[in-house]
Amino acid sequence: MVSKRYLFTPGPTPVPPEVLAAISQPIIHHRGADFRALYERCLQRLREVFRTESEVLMFAASGTGAMESAVANLCAPGERVLVVSAGYFGERWAAIARAYGCDVDELRYEWGAMPAAEDVAERGRGAKAVLLTQSETSTGVVADVQALTAAARHVGALAVVDAVSSLGAVPLETDAWGVDVVISGSQKALMTPPGLALVSVSDAAWAQLSSSPRFYFDWERTRTAQARLDAAFTPAVSLVAGLDVALGLLLHDGLESAFAHHVRLGRACRAGVKAMGLELFSPDDDRSSVVTAIHAPDGVDANEVVALLRDRHGITVAPGQGPLKGKVFRIGHIGWFDVFDITTALAGVELALVELGGDVERGVAVTRALEAFEEAQTVR
Amino acid sequence: MVSKRYLFTPGPTPVPPEVLAAISQPIIHHRGADFRALYERCLQRLREVFRTESEVLMFAASGTGAMESAVANLCAPGERVLVVSAGYFGERWAAIARAYGCDVDELRYEWGAMPAAEDVAERGRGAKAVLLTQSETSTGVVADVQALTAAARHVGALAVVDAVSSLGAVPLETDAWGVDVVISGSQKALMTPPGLALVSVSDAAWAQLSSSPRFYFDWERTRTAQARLDAAFTPAVSLVAGLDVALGLLLHDGLESAFAHHVRLGRACRAGVKAMGLELFSPDDDRSSVVTAIHAPDGVDANEVVALLRDRHGITVAPGQGPLKGKVFRIGHIGWFDVFDITTALAGVELALVELGGDVERGVAVTRALEAFEEAQTVR
Repeated sequence: MVSKRYLFTPGPTPVPPEVLAAISQPIIHHRGADFRALYERCLQRLREVFRTESEVLMFAASGTGAMESAVANLCAPGERVLVVSAGYFGERWAAIARAYGCDVDELRYEWGAMPAAEDVAERGRGAKAVLLTQSETSTGVVADVQALTAAARHVGALAVVDAVSSLGAVPLETDAWGVDVVISGSQKALMTPPGLALVSVSDAAWAQLSSSPRFYFDWERTRTAQARLDAAFTPAVSLVAGLDVALGLLLHDGLESAFAHHVRLGRACRAGVKAMGLELFSPDDDRSSVVTAIHAPDGVDANEVVALLRDRHGITVAPGQGPLKGKVFRIGHIGWFDVFDITTALAGVELALVELGGDVERGVAVTRALEAFEEAQTVR
Repeated sequence: MVSKRYLFTPGPTPVPPEVLAAISQPIIHHRGADFRALYERCLQRLREVFRTESEVLMFAASGTGAMESAVANLCAPGERVLVVSAGYFGERWAAIARAYGCDVDELRYEWGAMPAAEDVAERGRGAKAVLLTQSETSTGVVADVQALTAAARHVGALAVVDAVSSLGAVPLETDAWGVDVVISGSQKALMTPPGLALVSVSDAAWAQLSSSPRFYFDWERTRTAQARLDAAFTPAVSLVAGLDVALGLLLHDGLESAFAHHVRLGRACRAGVKAMGLELFSPDDDRSSVVTAIHAPDGVDANEVVALLRDRHGITVAPGQGPLKGKVFRIGHIGWFDVFDITTALAGVELALVELGGDVERGVAVTRALEAFEEAQTVR
């Protein structure tokens, strides 16, 4: 039998068939009229998704490349930056800033904690930039970026936000909230294969470029090229064609609809998990609707849950990272995802936990998830 | 009518349908067993194509990202590097090295010149690295990398070679010739869409890493991850799947067969061009079989040839760059390319030149190209 496969990780995420069809078209040259039309439309759609009037810069890279671009373009060696970290990706900000010789002040919370704007207001004074994470994919926490950005700007620092797993899934009002730099990637809520990194840059950030060495990730070079509908370097034309189609799908019903859909998916997932008698690690709140982190029940290794789901049932969920290894597993529900993906994930988890001898309530998770999804129909 | 499109540029190049089918498969997670098996095979195939026992590092990026990685990982600010430049991509090496604050000595030839090993031996003394270009795509010249590498190593410098448009098309014996660093990309002779950058690193280069800031392109981080069949950052899984299939196709008949094929394509292209009465800009030699640069005939603007071919005939060839703008046009013949692509390109050029009032010999180019291709059957 050909077995079916289910991808329920918080990235890369499943890609709609329309997008897969677009990336498999014959290669076109990046300086021809057809690519330029596609590129222009894609860059315009990105501005809509980023909710910004600024140019969104596109790089052939993983999201981390765009994170590095923010440090390289804004922070000189010895310059003070405040890194707010409460998980794996916050710690990555600190590692990048240290690699560039910045004077890094790490406002470090326990993994899973919710960063507080007051702490940023207190610690951010004198920092050139505050490096923030909107969706900390390792813990499921979605931070209050609006409040954190306000605190950063209040102390005169640039607010730089990693929105790799959140952009397009939860609200991020780049211009309205005054976020200076927003980082994202193609492979999460933007429903495209990995390989494109995205950055929006505010006027304030453009005015404060650093002297750190850079070439491939140099913002000015990329902005100048994009202004001519050119790319500084050969773009990943296939992925750009896919992203264009995916953004068209996303914007067809509008971002508000996508945000409401993710809230409903999050509620459905959490309701099902709780009905089974499992304990949530990620917050039980509507903002944290990107990925749900779940404690394995007593006596069960979370890594074994992940392995069994993958090897026996064709279902890929994500394991815990760092201090959460073996303790939690994570169900991603971003991008091209519907309630039946949630019920499949929950059914698989129920089955795997029973097989591993975990103490779970059977036969309730799926129904409770469907109910929660329906109850949440009027969200927003 | 649906019009057919022909891509005859030296990158991105046409991609075989098997590769397009591979990149359009549903997304798989990069930490699952299926991706790891694919990744391992692909990395092994890369070593075969690079002709090296060293690990080939893979980045989600354009080829320029891999060029920058060589500078960032090997060259510290103030360190002396010799850049050998005779065209657009040689000058890019110099720009990257300057961006990193290196003490750049540019051994600059006229565009289209063939760099001389004696010059490297003379100027290279005291340089940490010599930055070389195997196939200068802007001029069609393929340099004698074996001799240039020997000269660099003779003066104790690392030999770093941009082989973006040449790897897999013309011989490059990384280990046998002692090339320290070889850079390539997915979108040329490797018959895959753009978006993957590749670097092989010799033991001597590993022993001389620099202190320049870097994170995404850090070689050590990537090598450590690849040793575990992991990737330091989310890899472009779709493109990796495509590259794996493309490398399988390339290695099925063997690299020697690919090299001989490119020699035949180059001979066919040059023979047809000359039969038409046009003058070659690129060398009339068998090593330069990546791209053929052709002078536009008297009174014809080469950019108009490119525009007419594209807009009226659906054929994309490349214009001249830099000082060659408007003077030459270029036909790429690398990767998934056969003799009928050459004859189509020549037929299109003949038609366009007649339309533009150029003085060309009609009705001979295609036949002469076919003959030259056949005559060259015993190459190697």
